[in-house]
Amino acid sequence: MAGSTPKILVTNDDGVYSPGLRLLYEAVKDIGKAYVLAPETPKSASGLGITLHKPLRITRVRLWSDVDVYMTNGTPSDVIYLAIEEFSPHLDIVVSGVNIGDNTSIQVILSSGTIGAAAQAALLGIPGLAFSANVDEASQLEEDRETWENIKKIIRRIVLWVLDNGIPEGADIISVNFPRRVTRETRVKIAPAARIKFLQKVSVLYDPRGRKYYWLYGTLVEPEPGSDVYVVHVENAIAVTPLSLNMNPPRSSWSTMVEKLKPMVSLVEAELAGASKS
Amino acid sequence: MAGSTPKILVTNDDGVYSPGLRLLYEAVKDIGKAYVLAPETPKSASGLGITLHKPLRITRVRLWSDVDVYMTNGTPSDVIYLAIEEFSPHLDIVVSGVNIGDNTSIQVILSSGTIGAAAQAALLGIPGLAFSANVDEASQLEEDRETWENIKKIIRRIVLWVLDNGIPEGADIISVNFPRRVTRETRVKIAPAARIKFLQKVSVLYDPRGRKYYWLYGTLVEPEPGSDVYVVHVENAIAVTPLSLNMNPPRSSWSTMVEKLKPMVSLVEAELAGASKS
Repeated sequence: MAGSTPKILVTNDDGVYSPGLRLLYEAVKDIGKAYVLAPETPKSASGLGITLHKPLRITRVRLWSDVDVYMTNGTPSDVIYLAIEEFSPHLDIVVSGVNIGDNTSIQVILSSGTIGAAAQAALLGIPGLAFSANVDEASQLEEDRETWENIKKIIRRIVLWVLDNGIPEGADIISVNFPRRVTRETRVKIAPAARIKFLQKVSVLYDPRGRKYYWLYGTLVEPEPGSDVYVVHVENAIAVTPLSLNMNPPRSSWSTMVEKLKPMVSLVEAELAGASKS
Repeated sequence: MAGSTPKILVTNDDGVYSPGLRLLYEAVKDIGKAYVLAPETPKSASGLGITLHKPLRITRVRLWSDVDVYMTNGTPSDVIYLAIEEFSPHLDIVVSGVNIGDNTSIQVILSSGTIGAAAQAALLGIPGLAFSANVDEASQLEEDRETWENIKKIIRRIVLWVLDNGIPEGADIISVNFPRRVTRETRVKIAPAARIKFLQKVSVLYDPRGRKYYWLYGTLVEPEPGSDVYVVHVENAIAVTPLSLNMNPPRSSWSTMVEKLKPMVSLVEAELAGASKS
């Protein structure tokens, strides 16, 4: 860090027109050189999807007076690779958000494009931070100036800290979820992710021609105390959640896992050994 | 299990027309009642994306003589919720695949629709299995009858075992990756997922009108011995990989993680406390 200007990629999954992207840019613009590249349309629930089957474009849009904003037809994860190609092979940090809607619980995290962008960065060894707010609409964020300014200060502080200290060992990314309002009384809690947040439901409907269709939606489950969902939705506090991308069972339980699966492997090998030679 | 007919959901992310789906169905059709519902078009790299912003349809297609095949405009994750609504609220197991292309390494797993479907099932408490094959094209699978028949037998054996024993504690899903060819000599190895598999690259190209565009592609990295990538690509063996969806740092290191993040939290709280009341 010392003596150099950090290169910061600012992105999101709600698209370039989201006020959350503007808020995130404002929070980090004085820290270093900030590049803004985001999807042209909302890519919510795109997860870590990468676009391999079609050409991607990057277009400059005249959106804000103080910085060039770039948009792409790709996903948040595509953005990381495009930014490395287009702006710099040496990004110091990737910040993603501020998402309209919190990204709490594993269920939501695994499908979140906001977190996906931070995760892709982490896979490339670039510190990744994801920021999300428990608001239903962008206007709620824009109209509440106190919350807007407080979120901005908090993001700035966290980015500076991570640029100095890195992501703590044992985690790959840090996800920060803000409650509906952030005031000087708002508390900050380090909280693990709950497993699920929504009971996903299916609404069965009929179109004007009488044909059946389906619409998915979720209803909140009772959150486990101490979890990210609880901190944000019940305590109205800020949840700081370190996340690991390592989906392997913990090293300490690996040999137990192998023992449990061995009988299955033996059955499969026996099946194969009995297979006829062709 | 005893005395009841297991309800099996068969899905994939390559779409209903993939021979891999047919292979998977053939492998499990005699085990119980198999429902086949899959995306109408390939949804590769869709991860755990859920479609909340548009209506979903389910259409029956006359594709195979021995079973009704249903297709949807949704993602593999949507399929789980649609199947519960449409077929049965009590699915005993969800099998996803056989994907054209292996799903090895965390990098690929996190964006895989094949694994996404199994993961969504697991979040709902339904055992989820993902099957993938290291082939470039579906025809390679269809034309190699020995491999086809062996994969079928192996899947059948694994599904029967999981119906009897469940997914081992500490894992949420099991992902199985087959090498290019599966013969009676092929070995089966329990292998953890590597972190990355591809160095993602960006090709910069120009269209006939001279406008720049980008195409993402990946080149294989040298795989770590013992990892799923190594087992499938170097040893040409079958990799059985138990995966956990818990992205929280291991419980044993949580307090250390909290200690590391506390200084950051203190800085943020100090920043907030100094904020002006509005």
